[in-house]
Amino acid sequence: MKIGFIGFGEVGSTLARSFKLEGVKVYTSLEGRSRRTIKLAKSSGVNICPSFRQLADISDIILVAVTPAQAVKAAKVIGKNFKGLYVDLNNISPSTVRDALQKVSEAKTVDAAIMSSINKGMNVPVVASGKHARDFAELNSLGMNIEIVGDKIGQASALKMLRSAYTKGVSALLFESLSVAYQMEVDDLVLKYLAETEGPNFKEIAVSRIINSILHGERRTQELEEVLNFLSEYEDPLMTQATLDLFRLIVNQGGHLKKKPNNYHKLFLKMSR
Amino acid sequence: MKIGFIGFGEVGSTLARSFKLEGVKVYTSLEGRSRRTIKLAKSSGVNICPSFRQLADISDIILVAVTPAQAVKAAKVIGKNFKGLYVDLNNISPSTVRDALQKVSEAKTVDAAIMSSINKGMNVPVVASGKHARDFAELNSLGMNIEIVGDKIGQASALKMLRSAYTKGVSALLFESLSVAYQMEVDDLVLKYLAETEGPNFKEIAVSRIINSILHGERRTQELEEVLNFLSEYEDPLMTQATLDLFRLIVNQGGHLKKKPNNYHKLFLKMSR
Repeated sequence: MKIGFIGFGEVGSTLARSFKLEGVKVYTSLEGRSRRTIKLAKSSGVNICPSFRQLADISDIILVAVTPAQAVKAAKVIGKNFKGLYVDLNNISPSTVRDALQKVSEAKTVDAAIMSSINKGMNVPVVASGKHARDFAELNSLGMNIEIVGDKIGQASALKMLRSAYTKGVSALLFESLSVAYQMEVDDLVLKYLAETEGPNFKEIAVSRIINSILHGERRTQELEEVLNFLSEYEDPLMTQATLDLFRLIVNQGGHLKKKPNNYHKLFLKMSR
Repeated sequence: MKIGFIGFGEVGSTLARSFKLEGVKVYTSLEGRSRRTIKLAKSSGVNICPSFRQLADISDIILVAVTPAQAVKAAKVIGKNFKGLYVDLNNISPSTVRDALQKVSEAKTVDAAIMSSINKGMNVPVVASGKHARDFAELNSLGMNIEIVGDKIGQASALKMLRSAYTKGVSALLFESLSVAYQMEVDDLVLKYLAETEGPNFKEIAVSRIINSILHGERRTQELEEVLNFLSEYEDPLMTQATLDLFRLIVNQGGHLKKKPNNYHKLFLKMSR
């Protein structure tokens, strides 16, 4: 079996190295890729195709892990040349997945989403949906950890985005309630009383959410914009709009701690201690 | 020691009965009270004062547990006649507590909040703040469960309201994410994946939050209005405004399930099974 990769960042390179160790022939193309990607690909010892057209010709399975903005373009580049299994692992909304997969209309297509940090390696939990998700899940025999979550394209991406809407919303709630609590000198007590209803690890998780929301505020704001677009197709996403607005406050008002810290950042500074 | 009660609903009557069993002399006044309160007071065997003026004369401690709308009025009725310990147990915002306690300027005042269901009896967790909170906490020797949370009036009420902002916000996030998940047939999976980050009891708590938010939607909406007023003094409460808006949707659009159920109510119906 030959597996082709489009996108050779963290996700692509981690999976490619793991498959190679399992004896699978692994390919990518560096056509138009960034210097960093080229370096990563060459150092990993993966086979390099001169063009995506040739990558499509040689691969049985193509795994795509590019930035959200490149997802549709990647599918377009492969186009109708590919008749194997095309798996979209990108961090994009269900409708963007559908847009992308329509471009590879001759392939068997799978919507997939990585549900945890790729640092876990090939064993990272992955969800997959679509009529051909079962074909993708056969890679579990090589050490992947794929769960089939439905037979419709979009369900896997939806699952990831909905989890994201919830967890980022919780982070925003923590900022809103704890920043006032901090001003009133009851933040430790609010955490203590919430732990009684929310579970024993609540405080630890809450502190890490506050710290990570500040440290990765810009990326989360971008992700929230994508989540908001998705939810807007189904309802008026009141909470996610507020979450996005609050993350924008964190990103802009705080100025990454270079400016005078506002109350959200005072909270961050206390929690970071 | 003589304890006077203003307000003789669930909270007042439960505490009064418990104190009586401990051998404390317990008083209330039925001046201008509702028929239900009069009935409760008479059946509990508490001593009845003809007026609040006499209640103030005879009591060492006055515990006040009335509806939010009556809290300031109750303090006004007692006025400057009382020089004992006046404990505000009402479910009101810090600034309303301060408004109320200014009316009893000769008394030693305490801000207190009941943190769980009064069905637990006298042992229900209570938080208290203010310079005289320690005096109130002496009632722990009789079986109360009072924690002192600060020396400022407003801190105890703030603690309760901030917990409320967080937990009701979480309920709103559950409605927003799970109603779309339900439409996409991935609601069970969203709950499953969230349980991995949010803790083992997550699903059970989430289901009970959805059910109770619908069943007690009107009361929660009123509570959220009070919480929103409080937070607005400190920040732009983006999340709590969205939470209130979402609860208003639940209350109005759903029409308590008499009308055609919307997606929030479809979710409720599934979770209630």
